[in-house]
Amino acid sequence: MTETAEPRSWRGPKTSQRLAHALAQPILSGAVRPGDRLPNEQDMMALYGAGRPTVREALRLLEARGLIMLKTGPGGGPIVRRPAKASLSEALTLLLQVEGASFSDVTDARMALEPMLARRAAERITDRQIEELADSVAKLRASRGDREVFATENQRFHTLIAEAAQSVVLDVFVSTLKTIADGVRVGVEYSARKQAAVADAHEAIVDAVRARDPERAEAAMRDHLVEAERYWRHRYPELMTRPVRWTY
Amino acid sequence: MTETAEPRSWRGPKTSQRLAHALAQPILSGAVRPGDRLPNEQDMMALYGAGRPTVREALRLLEARGLIMLKTGPGGGPIVRRPAKASLSEALTLLLQVEGASFSDVTDARMALEPMLARRAAERITDRQIEELADSVAKLRASRGDREVFATENQRFHTLIAEAAQSVVLDVFVSTLKTIADGVRVGVEYSARKQAAVADAHEAIVDAVRARDPERAEAAMRDHLVEAERYWRHRYPELMTRPVRWTY
Repeated sequence: MTETAEPRSWRGPKTSQRLAHALAQPILSGAVRPGDRLPNEQDMMALYGAGRPTVREALRLLEARGLIMLKTGPGGGPIVRRPAKASLSEALTLLLQVEGASFSDVTDARMALEPMLARRAAERITDRQIEELADSVAKLRASRGDREVFATENQRFHTLIAEAAQSVVLDVFVSTLKTIADGVRVGVEYSARKQAAVADAHEAIVDAVRARDPERAEAAMRDHLVEAERYWRHRYPELMTRPVRWTY
Repeated sequence: MTETAEPRSWRGPKTSQRLAHALAQPILSGAVRPGDRLPNEQDMMALYGAGRPTVREALRLLEARGLIMLKTGPGGGPIVRRPAKASLSEALTLLLQVEGASFSDVTDARMALEPMLARRAAERITDRQIEELADSVAKLRASRGDREVFATENQRFHTLIAEAAQSVVLDVFVSTLKTIADGVRVGVEYSARKQAAVADAHEAIVDAVRARDPERAEAAMRDHLVEAERYWRHRYPELMTRPVRWTY
């Protein structure tokens, strides 16, 4: 660790933040890896010529950001970890709850993001990923009546599109929103006829992506989401105004 | 505090998480407010019949989520705070850095989100907010040559649209992205002619919003962003592949 960070070179205002930033660099660059042990509090004080409160605050900041885990007890100390999407989802959900977000706000955001994902997917998808999408549609069709399979394949389809898009930011946002507000998870029921309509919509998206037609893929995804939202609004009007809640 | 949470009713698996969740409820509901003091570690142990490690982990979890601040030293203890957008932006930036996101990924996301914000703004904007938008465009026009004023008014315009949209999720996402990748902040220079073109684009959006025409507002914002991205790509090709970095 000592060779990657530069002791004493990070001095300036907001000392603990600067120290946290210096400590974060080898983690973010991959020079140290999840599971690696960083020097303990005592050693860091010596290494960086910093007081205990500064070191402690810097370590807390890194822990809060998911970059380290502070193991307590004898033989404890900071252990490198990788910030997880799940942790961001939780932070985002809390913020949305404090800000008074509703389910409707979440669907607005999905409606903005997912057509762009479909567009990028059409530009970047691999043949193998196209086959996976087709497989998901086939399983969705075969699921008629089975709520569990339908829920799984529905989620899987949108996740596959997000992966194929290779757009990190969009993917992180949409994954977060899906954990907060997935129609099936919040209790939306689909009739067999409705399930078939969802399969048709997914198939239209696959066709556009397979044709590598970004415009058509974007439009097909938009149509699909507009239709889904119309259905939710019609059948579950109370759902749309329901506030986002922190669950665990 | 004792009357809002329910001591001993939260027992079960993942004890510290359940305790954190119980402690969070009065904060999230507003029953306790930023600046309020929660019982200290010792008192919580008694109150919830929990061991010190459990209480400590629960408090750490709340601190990591921005719901409390742990004041150290004599007279210290947990103080209620409000999770800040800035803190989420930082967490998101770190995650994007770890996931290898580029500036181009960020502009993709802005291009997906901001047209939807413009659409919602056209549906929900107040007369007073329309005047603020018009004021921003006027100042942008008057700024010709002044890089500082241009940067400020450019940011202000997009922030005003986000506020007028009253869509919490979209607002949180876009605010985050703006702190990560604002064209001006990362060093993009606009000529006087280019600045005038941006003012024209903003004016077209204001016109559509003033006419309460969601379709037109969405299209005008999309055109504006597509044009901005084209300019960045043409003039700063190296910018688009630049990885997202954590700054402070």
